[in-house]
Order: sequence, then structure tokens, then C-alpha cells
Amino acid sequence: MKLKLLFSCLISAGISLPLFAQETVDPAIIQKIREEGLNHSKVMETAFYLTDVAGPRLSGSPGLKRAQDWAVSQLKTWGLVNAKLEPWGKFGKGWEVQKNYAAITLPYYHAIIAIPKAWTPGTNGLIKGDVIVVKADSAIDLDKYKGKLQNKVVIFDVKPLVERSFKSDAARYTDEELAEMANATEQPAAQRRAFDSNSPQFAAMRKARAFQAALRDFAYAEKAALILSQARGTDGTVFTTNGASYADTAKAVAPELETSSEDYQRILRLANSGQKVQLEADIKTQFLTNDMQGYDVVAEIPGTDKRLKEQVVMIGGHLDSWHAATGATDNAAGSAVMMEAIRILKAINFKPKRTIRIALWSSEEQGLFGSRGYVLNHFGDPKTMELKPEQAKLSAYYNLDNGTGKIRGIYLQGDSAAGPIFKSWLEPFKDLGATTLTIRNTGGTDHLSFDAVGIPGFQFIQDPVDYGSRTHHSNQDTYDRLIEDDLKQAATIIASFVYNTSERVQMIPRKALPQPQPAR
Amino acid sequence: MKLKLLFSCLISAGISLPLFAQETVDPAIIQKIREEGLNHSKVMETAFYLTDVAGPRLSGSPGLKRAQDWAVSQLKTWGLVNAKLEPWGKFGKGWEVQKNYAAITLPYYHAIIAIPKAWTPGTNGLIKGDVIVVKADSAIDLDKYKGKLQNKVVIFDVKPLVERSFKSDAARYTDEELAEMANATEQPAAQRRAFDSNSPQFAAMRKARAFQAALRDFAYAEKAALILSQARGTDGTVFTTNGASYADTAKAVAPELETSSEDYQRILRLANSGQKVQLEADIKTQFLTNDMQGYDVVAEIPGTDKRLKEQVVMIGGHLDSWHAATGATDNAAGSAVMMEAIRILKAINFKPKRTIRIALWSSEEQGLFGSRGYVLNHFGDPKTMELKPEQAKLSAYYNLDNGTGKIRGIYLQGDSAAGPIFKSWLEPFKDLGATTLTIRNTGGTDHLSFDAVGIPGFQFIQDPVDYGSRTHHSNQDTYDRLIEDDLKQAATIIASFVYNTSERVQMIPRKALPQPQPAR
Repeated sequence: MKLKLLFSCLISAGISLPLFAQETVDPAIIQKIREEGLNHSKVMETAFYLTDVAGPRLSGSPGLKRAQDWAVSQLKTWGLVNAKLEPWGKFGKGWEVQKNYAAITLPYYHAIIAIPKAWTPGTNGLIKGDVIVVKADSAIDLDKYKGKLQNKVVIFDVKPLVERSFKSDAARYTDEELAEMANATEQPAAQRRAFDSNSPQFAAMRKARAFQAALRDFAYAEKAALILSQARGTDGTVFTTNGASYADTAKAVAPELETSSEDYQRILRLANSGQKVQLEADIKTQFLTNDMQGYDVVAEIPGTDKRLKEQVVMIGGHLDSWHAATGATDNAAGSAVMMEAIRILKAINFKPKRTIRIALWSSEEQGLFGSRGYVLNHFGDPKTMELKPEQAKLSAYYNLDNGTGKIRGIYLQGDSAAGPIFKSWLEPFKDLGATTLTIRNTGGTDHLSFDAVGIPGFQFIQDPVDYGSRTHHSNQDTYDRLIEDDLKQAATIIASFVYNTSERVQMIPRKALPQPQPAR
Repeated sequence: MKLKLLFSCLISAGISLPLFAQETVDPAIIQKIREEGLNHSKVMETAFYLTDVAGPRLSGSPGLKRAQDWAVSQLKTWGLVNAKLEPWGKFGKGWEVQKNYAAITLPYYHAIIAIPKAWTPGTNGLIKGDVIVVKADSAIDLDKYKGKLQNKVVIFDVKPLVERSFKSDAARYTDEELAEMANATEQPAAQRRAFDSNSPQFAAMRKARAFQAALRDFAYAEKAALILSQARGTDGTVFTTNGASYADTAKAVAPELETSSEDYQRILRLANSGQKVQLEADIKTQFLTNDMQGYDVVAEIPGTDKRLKEQVVMIGGHLDSWHAATGATDNAAGSAVMMEAIRILKAINFKPKRTIRIALWSSEEQGLFGSRGYVLNHFGDPKTMELKPEQAKLSAYYNLDNGTGKIRGIYLQGDSAAGPIFKSWLEPFKDLGATTLTIRNTGGTDHLSFDAVGIPGFQFIQDPVDYGSRTHHSNQDTYDRLIEDDLKQAATIIASFVYNTSERVQMIPRKALPQPQPAR
């Protein structure tokens, strides 16, 4: 206790100190957190409300609103303050599926597994149409289909994606894989750039995308009744995406179903063999334009230390999902775990020095919009690196968004100075499998928004389980996929990280400020 | 050649000889068979017609009829004689799905993956109903639901079947597994009896079945709009079965959907939590009663040897399937392989000594009816062991019905004398992975019908691939699951077995005649 006081005095006097090899971790508090998190968990109940009860949570959808309202209300019930929906900026149109039926009717009847692409229109009642296979690689190829697509069901001549799995869908990290992460050195900036926008690959991708867009424009102009596109996934699993923009200025498209690869290839084989193939479909989708704002859920446990309560520890995960299921692993899991971490801290009656804030983002799936908007409103602009005063007061942001897998460690995101601190904090969780620190970056989720303005932002290392193979953006991302023990473990560890961050004498050390990113 | 002549003379003189350790195998013919089967295969084309083009092939359905007619016509095209549909006896009603749509409409919209149980009625148009959870373990429990099921969607309070797979769906036999089969000794008769009908387990199973039937009777009497039952399977894979009898005297039942475990459990969790859950469904099924006969496809390559042409070698597999997919691995695979084996022999212009006969059975899925009926009509009655003259003239029956997996060897079905013969015949296929002889029996398919009347009947050992985990009776048993190289291998090996069996001096040695099986 004395040591801590000394620290506080030195810090408030602006005197910097060398890092201590060992952090002070209060084993009694950690034990309380473990007891509450592992033996009195409510994480599955929370996950149930965010998934089964709320439904699909596409950005702007009624499902997301239900989940957001429930989360605000629940956080209030747990005693949090300033619990609210906070607008982060303009998003666009809401959208949801209200009817989804499609079947082959010729050469015989067979109902297919297919999902309307997000933000695509419906069929305006039950339609029937003959299948036409469009074989086109360029705009010129399309000419031969002029006048031939009206009232037709359009499919494309693409290769099968069906694969038989001789390896397991789900896996946990092996000791070797974790050791490889732990031994990684910081990637040089050049390697970090995943895409060189001048590379031939990128040019080819751009061209392919432009052609896909041209193809859809053509099908719409030619009054195609329905487009079928082949979904990634197999065995009845269908990965989904969007078929049009959510922007209120989005151009019109034809109805389009992301079709299970098995059904798609059956239709294609039959049509290519010269068989007459007919489909019927009844798709109804609803656009919602009453409120184009995007919102994040935020709530706080206020800090109690006179000097430190202006400083903040944030945790979060995105609450929005894709539309074909209830986004259990992407990312009700992270949202429920973060809510549970907060609940644990309230349940043990923890009074933090710094203020603790939870945020459940929206529109992550469209480009981290919820967290980016929040960061822009509160902390600074990564394009110009003009920073706001709050930026200096946020110690760290912790994120969870890699599925249901338990925590195996943390990505330091290049913040090497945070390494020894987190190493101490993970120490009490060795028995739960969380041991690995890697200097590596990880991408694709909301900690990037914080990292972009120089705030320490971290995503935990999580066991992959079947995130990539089965659940991530698929029609199978349902409550059943959640592994209770893993979520309990994650919530317990995150609660302890929040506790430690809020009580630590110093804030989490920072990397050098990034350069402005005008192109981002 | 001389040795063979000697054999023929001795046999026709009724003199029995000791078994020769090494069979005569003509490498030139085997090489021709390999060349045709491995490099000029049509097996995938045949499988395409039996699956994609014919559709689901439930016994008595139009899909089965399409496949049967095509097979007869194709076998004729290849030059077979006596190609026809041969009635095996009375089956019952045909049935097919003509519309299949179901969705949750409250608390939000979500189309579910669900398959009408075979031989259940439709909903007579689009219906909407509230979900009611029936929690009942006995007939007395049902009393409390009297008057409460009308127009309701009935579900049962059952445990989740959803499982996350940390092991692969598909596998091939390991060397260790094959060695274990090879080293197996003949099972004593006592062990062979899988069920003791007086055991407590069997009594419990009988009781559970009786209650399931009582439950369905109750739901029908109470005018339930629809029953949902939880299907085996996960990730969108739904295993199917029948919900009523195909008999023309079958009692009436309510419409029933075998529902994907994920969708089922979501509905159940919501309903059990007190949420109002509503479903809509539009199911149309068609019963066909014009022709209650069951038929097998049969066709022959006539024998050319004066003395031996009255003797027969048979190969077969069942052509009927379940209704939720196109029965690619169960058992278009076996049917296509057997047709391909025949095609190979015709393509190399093979003139067999004995007559070769292919049979594609129906109603295997309901109890091996097609093969049992055929055996009864041609060979004998296993109940009485009254045998017909043809029984003495059938050298062997070879069956294929364990999925798409390549042949790894053969089950001797207790016929130890056949072992050395088959060992020689497998010798040229070591490089293709077919090496294992096991004395073991294997069950569940049509060779049993032959075995039951003392005719050597064999099923090959096949790599399991994902037969048990994904395809066997599921909505995912589609053409995509077929592994071309495996089917080519199997057809090549079977063609060689047929060749060897037709040319062999003696018929395949037989086990002692089985006892009459009045209870069977």
C-alpha cells in the first residue's frame, strides 16, 4: 500500500520511473473475481438475451435495437451509471428479412438453403422463374445475355466450393502455436501492410469486384427475377455478406440469395447439362429509414479516486452481427463476456480508482464504424492526429471479438512496454490456459480504432474453436456454439485486467503516436 | 488352361478337391479392367443421373421411378439383356415433398432448416401457430395437455444434440484399424446377437418407442397444427427418417418436421424462457397409391460357357434413398459403382462363362425389402429354409452400400473358405489400398438377404469418410459428397471380382446352411 502511495505522488509530480519487473496484483481481489466469474456466472444468460431473444443484429436492424435496449437496461440494473445509447454518426438504412423461401420446382421439388444478401430487396411475392446460367468474365461477355434475363433466375458458372473436411472444424491452440506467437518479433512496417494497392493482385481484385458490380447492374437493368450466388460454407452452413450498400443513396439491385454451395452446384450441374431448372421464391425484406444514426451502448462504473477518477479504463466488443443467425460468436460472445466482466466487478462490490467504461459497438461489420465514430467524437482524428483532451486520460481499451474461444493471452499490438505488466496480470490465470504474450498486431476489430489515435488498444488471443470454419458470419452462428467454460474464463480474466488497469499507479505505457493516416 | 480344364472335369464328375492356395488371376484382363475403370470411367456421369437428375429416391416415390427407368434404359444401352423392373412384392404408398417452408415469426422472423418426416401429411396451406412445449414422459403426463394442442406447434422438451466437432467429419481407415479387422476372429453366435429382446435395455427402448407413438397419436387426436422433432445433425445438416408408415393401412398422423438441432433448440430455449414463439409453415406432401408394388432393377450379361452359363454371379446395391437429399452416398454411390463395374466389363468386351446379373434394390431403407423379396422369389425362404433350385446356382452376391469411401478389403461374413480366394483377387489392387480380409460380419444392407438363405453374400470394407457424421440419411447426401477417385477404384475392383467369380472353375465355397429364422 505504501509503495502504491509513493507511486501516486511521484506520478502526480510528473516524475517518470523505470518499469517495475513485477506488478502489484492483489491476490485476494483476484480470488474474489475468480469465485464470482467461475462459480456464479451469468454470462450464458446474458448471451441468451443478446442472441436468442434479440435475434439477428445487423447494423440498423430492429434486432440490434432490441439487444442495445436490453443491454442498457441490464447494465443499469447492475448499477452502472451513464448507461445509454450514444450516437456515433450517420450509418444508413436498417434492414431485416421478413420472409425467406426458395425451392427448386423443376426437374423436381427441393427447398434450398439460401439467405437473402443483406440490404437486397425482396421478390414482391411468390415468383417462379427458369434458371439461366450466365457465363461471363467481362462486360463484353454480357452482351449476349441482353434481353434474356427478364423474369429469370440468374446463376453464374462458378467452381464448387463444397469441400469435405478431413480435419476437424474446431481446434484449440497447441503449445507449439502459442510458443510461436510468444517468440514472434515485431513485424517491420513494410510487412504489416497486407495489401499493396499498386500490386497486380490488388489490381486484379479491383477488376474482379468492378465486374461483379457491373454484373449486378446488368441483371437489375435486365429485370432478372432473382440472382443466386454461391455461398462459402458446406454441410448446410452458409456464410453471408451484403448484396447492396446500407447507404441511403445506394443504387437499386435485384433480389439475391446467397445459396448453400451444395444447392447451388446442384442447380448449376442440372442447368449446365441442359435440364430445364425452375425455381420459386418468396423473399420479403424490410428497409428502415426512420433513424439513420448509428449508436453504441456505453455505461460506466465511476472512479472513486480523487485524482484518478478522471482517467478511464475501457472495455468493449461489437454488438452488431450479420443477419443469417444470431451472431453468437461474432460477437454476442465478446459483448456478453464484457458485460459479465462488469457484472463480476459490481458483484464483488469493487470501487475502482479510475472510471471503468464499457462500450458495445455497432457497425463493426461494415468497417468498425461504431468504435471509429466514438474515437473520433471523444479522442481524436486518425486522419489528422488532432487529439482531444480525453485521449490523454484513457489508460487502455480491451476488446474481445474472436469468437467463443477462451483467452490464451494477449496481442501487445507492438506495445512492448505493456508486456511485463500484462505478464504479471496473467500470472494468476496460468491454470486457466492464459499465458501467452505476443508483440504481434491483430486486426479486424475495434481495438484498431483506439490504436489509430495512440491509445493502447488490445485484443486478447482466443482459441479459434470453429470460428473460421463454421460460425464467423454464417447461418450457424447461434447460441449453441457458445462454450460456457470458455466465456466464464474470458470474463474472469478481463475483469481482473480491468481491476488491475483501474488500480495501477500509472496508466498503461503507450507506443509513439502514429502518423496521420489520411488514406485510411 | 489345362489346369482349369482338369478342374471342370473333376467338378462335373462331382469330385471335391482341396482349396488351392493361389487362385488363377489373368493379369492381362485385370490390366484391361484397370485401364477402363481408372482412366475411362463414367461413374460420375452415372451418379449424376441417379442423384441430381432423378432427385430424392424414397421407396415408392417418383424420384425412385425416374432413377429406375433411367438405369434400365442405360443398362440396355450398354448391351445388357433382360434389363427390366422386376416386382419383388407389395411395398405400400409412395410419397414425396411438394412444398417445404417453415419459419419462426415471433419473437422475430427466422426461416428454419427442417424436413418433413417421410410419409407425413402436409399442413393444407400456410398455417400459423403458437409453440407449445410438451413435457411428458408417460401417458399420464399427457393428460394435462388435453384441449391445449389444437392449432398449436408442438415441440418436446429434449436435450440439445448440437455438438461441436473437435475431430474431423471425415476419415479413412488407418493401418491399425485395418490390421485389427484382419486379425479379428469369428464372433461366437452369442456375441453376434446385437439385441437381447428380453434385456432391460430392449424393454426400455420398446417402452420409449411406444410412448413416442402414443405422443403422436395424442397430438393428432388433439388436432395439433404441426409437430417439430429435433433432428440428429448439426451445422445445418439434418438427418431424416419417417414419421408414419408407408403401409396403405397406416394410421393418420399430424404433420411433422425433423428440425435442425440449432433451430429446434432456439425455439425450445425461447419457449421455455416464457417468450411467445410463433411459427408459420406451408408443407405439401403427396401420397401415391396407384402402384403399391415394389420393384428392383435387374439386368444381365449372359454367360457363354455351356455348362456354367446357368450359374450366376450377382452384384447389387440399393437404389432407394431417404428424401431430404439425393442419397448420393446412400446409395447412389453403390448403385453407380455397380453399374460402372458392369459397364467396364462390357467396354472390354468380356464374355463371361457364368451369367452376370446386376440388381439395384428398392426399399432397403425400410428393411432390405427389395433384396429380401427378390431372394424369396428366386432362392428361398429364410424362415423355413425351403430353397429353390436357383439357390444352388448363384456363386456369390457382392454388395456396395457403405458410402463413397474406396474399397479397403472385404467382409468374409464368416465364410472363411472364401478368404484365400479373395486374398488372391485383391492382390493386384494393393497399390489402390484394398488389402484387408476380415472374417467379420457386417450388417445393415442387402448381402444379408442372400446370407440368410446360404448364398455367399459379401459387402466390401469401405473407408468411412463422412458417412456417419454427415451424409448417411441426411439432407447433405448430395452429389458433391462423392469422391470420384474412390468410386473409380471401387468399380474397378468389383469388375475384377465379377470377372474372377464368373471364370473361376468352382463356385465360391459356402458356409453351412443357416438355421430357419422364423422370428426374423
